[in-house]
Amino acid sequence: MSAPTICMGQYLFRRIKQLGTEHILGVPGDFNLALLDEIYNVSGLKWIGCCNELNGAYAADGYTRIKGSPAALVTTYAVGELSAMNGVAGAYAEHAGMIHIVGMPARSLQKTRAMLHHTMKANMDHATYIHMAAPIRETHAYLMNDETMAEEIDRTIVACVRSRLPVYIYVPTDTVSVQLDAKRLETPLDVTVHNSDSKTENQIVDSICNLIEKASSPVILADVLAIRHGGRELTRELAEITQFPSYSTPLSKGIIDETLPYYNGLYNGKVSFPGVAEGIENSDLVLNIGPLLSDSNTGGFTREIKDEHLVLLGHDSCQVPGQKFDGVHFLPVLKKLVAHLRANPPTLKHKALRTETPLLNDLKSGEIKQSYVWQRLGRFLRKDDILLVESGTAQFGMPDATFPPNVKLITQTFWSSIGYTVGACFGAMIAAQELKHSGRVVLIVGEGSLQMTVQEIGSYIRYGFKPIIFVINNNGYAIERAIHGPQQGYNDVSMMWDHQKMLSFFGAREDTGVKADSRATKTVEELEAVLNDDNFASGNNIQLCEIFMDTFDYPWRLTEQLNISQGRKK
Amino acid sequence: MSAPTICMGQYLFRRIKQLGTEHILGVPGDFNLALLDEIYNVSGLKWIGCCNELNGAYAADGYTRIKGSPAALVTTYAVGELSAMNGVAGAYAEHAGMIHIVGMPARSLQKTRAMLHHTMKANMDHATYIHMAAPIRETHAYLMNDETMAEEIDRTIVACVRSRLPVYIYVPTDTVSVQLDAKRLETPLDVTVHNSDSKTENQIVDSICNLIEKASSPVILADVLAIRHGGRELTRELAEITQFPSYSTPLSKGIIDETLPYYNGLYNGKVSFPGVAEGIENSDLVLNIGPLLSDSNTGGFTREIKDEHLVLLGHDSCQVPGQKFDGVHFLPVLKKLVAHLRANPPTLKHKALRTETPLLNDLKSGEIKQSYVWQRLGRFLRKDDILLVESGTAQFGMPDATFPPNVKLITQTFWSSIGYTVGACFGAMIAAQELKHSGRVVLIVGEGSLQMTVQEIGSYIRYGFKPIIFVINNNGYAIERAIHGPQQGYNDVSMMWDHQKMLSFFGAREDTGVKADSRATKTVEELEAVLNDDNFASGNNIQLCEIFMDTFDYPWRLTEQLNISQGRKK
Repeated sequence: MSAPTICMGQYLFRRIKQLGTEHILGVPGDFNLALLDEIYNVSGLKWIGCCNELNGAYAADGYTRIKGSPAALVTTYAVGELSAMNGVAGAYAEHAGMIHIVGMPARSLQKTRAMLHHTMKANMDHATYIHMAAPIRETHAYLMNDETMAEEIDRTIVACVRSRLPVYIYVPTDTVSVQLDAKRLETPLDVTVHNSDSKTENQIVDSICNLIEKASSPVILADVLAIRHGGRELTRELAEITQFPSYSTPLSKGIIDETLPYYNGLYNGKVSFPGVAEGIENSDLVLNIGPLLSDSNTGGFTREIKDEHLVLLGHDSCQVPGQKFDGVHFLPVLKKLVAHLRANPPTLKHKALRTETPLLNDLKSGEIKQSYVWQRLGRFLRKDDILLVESGTAQFGMPDATFPPNVKLITQTFWSSIGYTVGACFGAMIAAQELKHSGRVVLIVGEGSLQMTVQEIGSYIRYGFKPIIFVINNNGYAIERAIHGPQQGYNDVSMMWDHQKMLSFFGAREDTGVKADSRATKTVEELEAVLNDDNFASGNNIQLCEIFMDTFDYPWRLTEQLNISQGRKK
Repeated sequence: MSAPTICMGQYLFRRIKQLGTEHILGVPGDFNLALLDEIYNVSGLKWIGCCNELNGAYAADGYTRIKGSPAALVTTYAVGELSAMNGVAGAYAEHAGMIHIVGMPARSLQKTRAMLHHTMKANMDHATYIHMAAPIRETHAYLMNDETMAEEIDRTIVACVRSRLPVYIYVPTDTVSVQLDAKRLETPLDVTVHNSDSKTENQIVDSICNLIEKASSPVILADVLAIRHGGRELTRELAEITQFPSYSTPLSKGIIDETLPYYNGLYNGKVSFPGVAEGIENSDLVLNIGPLLSDSNTGGFTREIKDEHLVLLGHDSCQVPGQKFDGVHFLPVLKKLVAHLRANPPTLKHKALRTETPLLNDLKSGEIKQSYVWQRLGRFLRKDDILLVESGTAQFGMPDATFPPNVKLITQTFWSSIGYTVGACFGAMIAAQELKHSGRVVLIVGEGSLQMTVQEIGSYIRYGFKPIIFVINNNGYAIERAIHGPQQGYNDVSMMWDHQKMLSFFGAREDTGVKADSRATKTVEELEAVLNDDNFASGNNIQLCEIFMDTFDYPWRLTEQLNISQGRKK
C-alpha cells in the first residue's frame, strides 16, 4: 500500500487551517483559480472576496491584529500582487504580517518565458515580481520543485507566525495538483517563539528582578510590539502584579486598561499630557516592552529615557543597563519574568500618583471642535470595542480620549497609509467573528482617507457586518494642511460626495433587506443626540455618522508634533 | 551679475510644461507638498488630485495614450509610490509610460536613516523602495547631488518620451529649493527618436521597396506599438498611399479607419473572423508595424506568418526576410518609407477583396446577449469618440464591432489589470481637454472591474467631465467564470451595489447642480431605447447605462481563445 498523498493546494490550506484560520481573503485571477478550488475542499475554511488587492492586504493586516495569528491573502500574478504591495509593506512595518499566496503561470510557461498577459515584455523572467517584493517580507517559498514543496510551505508559515512579518508563497498553476505526503499534516507546525539560549533568558530575568528590587520608582512602558508579538496579556499581568505606574504609546494605546489606578497615561515624548513624560523620564527603572521608536510614536524623537534606567524587551533584542542581548526575543523572557514575580511579588515602594487626563473642551453646543470631539468619542466607546482610527487628525486626536477596558485599537501610526482603516476594518470584523468577539466595531475615518478605499464598505454590507462608522468631514486632507500649504488646492478632495447616500449605494436598502442608519452632524447638539441614541449605539445595524468640522482646526498633538519636527519649537 | 537661477521644483515642472503638458496628476503626501507648491508657480500648469495612487497611475497611462506624450504623476514616499506600482507596471508593459515623480525625506534624514513614518524598520536604507521599482521603469533620477540635478532631470524626461516607458524622478524634500541654472531651460529638450545610423534606415527602406515591387499580395498589419510610439498617422498614410489590404489587432483596433475599403479586419491568429487570418497568412508580404506579440494579442500564439513574407518594424528592432537590425527604431524608417512611397506610389497589383464583418446576432427583443451587444455598441459610436474597453468580456467582445472613423480605443489586453479603464478614462479626459478634442468619451466596464477603482468616478464629476458609462452587469467576474470555476463562489462579487445611485452618491445631484442620467436595461428593447435616445447619446451630461446580461454568456472570442490556450482544441 502506498503512502497517503494530498494535493499541494489542499496541503497548503490545511496548514493554514491548523493555525485556526477560518477565512481566506483575496481577489481571484486566472493564475490562482485552480488553487482557490481547494479552499472548498477544506472543511471549515471559507473564501472572502475583497474589491481590490490593496484593500485585501489592508484587510489581512486588520485580521492579523485582531486574531493574533496571520491572515492568509491570495492574489494573482503581477496585477494582483503589485496592487497589494503598499498594504503588505505596512504590515511589515507594523508587524501585522500575513501569508501572501500569489498565483503564477505554470512552470512550463515560466521556463519558455512565454509572453503571457501580466508579463511586461518578450522573454521576461517570470520571477521578476518575486524580486520586487523582497524587502517587504520575512521569507518566501517559490514552489518550483515537487520534492521540497511541503517543507517550503511549512518553513514559510512558521517564519510568518514567529516573526509576525509578511511571507510570500508563490504558486505556479500546475503545482496545485502535485501530490504531497499527507502524513506530514499529522504533525502540527511548531510556531512558538523560543530563544536558542535559555540561560541568557534567565540572566535577563535575574537582572530585571535585581533592578526592580533596587529601584525606587519603577514604571512600565508598554509599546505596540508587545501586542503584535503576542505579549499583550503578559504585559497586563506584569502591570497587575507589580502595580507599577504603567504607560502606553500612541501605537499601543489601550494595552493597559485605562480605568485601572496604575494606568498613568500615554507617553509620546514631549507630545504628552502634563505629568506623563515627567513620570517616565524621572523614573529610575523603565521596563519598556515591545518598543517601536518611529517619529510619530516618540513625539518626533523627543523621548528621553536614560540608558542607565532603561530595560528594553524587544522582539529582536533585549537590553538591561550596560548589556545588550541581540537576537533574544522578549516573549519567553517576559513569560519567565511574570512567572517569577507572580511567585515573588515585589513590594510597592511608592504609591503611584495617577496622572489625571485633563478635560480639554467640555463643549455643550455650537460648532464641533477637535479639542472636544476625541474625548467625547472616547466616552462613546464601550468595553471590548474594536476601534479603528485612521491616519490623520483622528490618529492625533484619539490619544486624548480615555478608553473603557479592553478596547482594541487598530491604527497605523508608523506606516501611516491613508485609507488603511477601511480595509483593515473588514479584516478585523472577519477575525472578530471567528473569535465570537462580542464588542462593537467602530471605525473613525476622514473623508479624504475614505475616498482611497471606499469600495470595501460594500464588502462590509455584502458579508453582513455592522460596524459604526464615523466620517470626519473637514474639507480635505487636514493633516496635510497642518503640515504644509493649508490653503493650497492640492490639499482639497472632492466635497461633492454625499456620505448620507453611501450605505444605500453599496447595498443597505429596502430591496436588499439590509437596514442602516446614516446621520450628519454639524453641531455639538446634533452629535450628542446621535451619540446618546441607544439605537445608534447598539450596533444592531450598520451605521454612519458624519461629523463636520472646520477645515483649519487641528488636534493639539498634531500641531505640537509638527512644531517639533519642523524645528519651529524645541 | 550672477547667472539667473531657478529652484529645482520649478525647473522640473517647467521642463514638463515644455512637453505640452498642462496638468500634473497625483496624490499629495507630506514628502511632496513643498514640491507641489511649485506647480502653482508655472503658468499654464494645473494640479489634478486623484482619489488614490493606483487610480492616479491608471489616469497617467490614459493621459499618455491620448496626448501622445507622457503624463506627469506625483506620489509620496513609500505609501504612495508602492500603491501606484501595478499601474506603472501596466504602463511599462503597454508602452504608455509616465514621468513618475516621488517625494522623499530630506537628504539629511536619509543620511541618518531616521525611523520616519513610511519607513519599515530602524536603520532602514531610505532608498529601499527605489530598488523595488527597478523592473518597471526605463531609467530614474535620484536627486541627491545639486551639481547633476538639472542634467539628471533632463536625461530622464528625454528617456521617457523616446522610450515611451515609465521613468522615475525621486525628489528629497530639501531639493525643491536647490537653485539651478535657469539658462538651461532656454534650450528645449530634444525628444525626437533617431537611430544612430541613417544608412541602415535607408537600407531597410530600400529592401522594403524592393519587396513591395516584387510582391503579388502585400498587406499591412498595424499593431499597437505603432500607436504608442507615435506612428499612428504615418501608418495610416502608408495604408492610404499603398491601398494595401490593412489589418489591426485586438490592441490596435481603430488604427486603420474601419470604414475605408482597404481596411480588412482585426487579426488575432485563429481567433479572427472568417477570411482575416487567411488574408494575412496567404500574403507574400506582410508589413507588420509596431508588433506586440502577447498571448491575447495573437489569439493565444496562433499567429502564423512565415518569416520569408514578414517585414517587422518594431520599436527596438527592424527585420526584413533574412536580416534583423537590432536597436533600430521603426519611426524614422517609416517616415522615410512613407516619403518614398508618396513620391513613387506602388502600382496596385491585386484589388483587395474586402473581408466583410459578419453580423453576429441581430436581436430585436428579449434578453441582451453577448453576441448582439458589442456590434450594437459599435454602432452607437461616433467619429472621433474616445472609447475605453475594460479587460474581461468587453475586451473580447468589442473586436466584433466596426468603428466609425478615428475612434481612439484604450484597452489593456496585454497587462490586463481589471479596474484599469476607470482610472485611465479620467486621464484620457484630461488629455482630451488639453487637445480640445471634440469627440465623446465612452467607457465600457464590467461591474466587478468597476468595484476595483470606483471612486475615480467621483473625480470625473469633481472636475466636470461628462463621459458616457456603460456598466456590464453579469453577476461577477465573467471572464474568470469562462476560464475556470463558472459556479465557484470566488467568481462572485457583491450584487448589492445599486449602480443607479452611483452618480448621485459621487456628486451629480440637484444640490451640486451637476446633471446626470442613469438607466438600467435588461432587454434589447430597453437598451435600444437608450442607445437611440439623442439626449443620452449627446454626451451633454455624465450618463450611465447599466446592461444586465446572463452570468454564463461569453463572447465567442473568449471561448475560442480559451479553447486554444487550455488545449481543448488545436
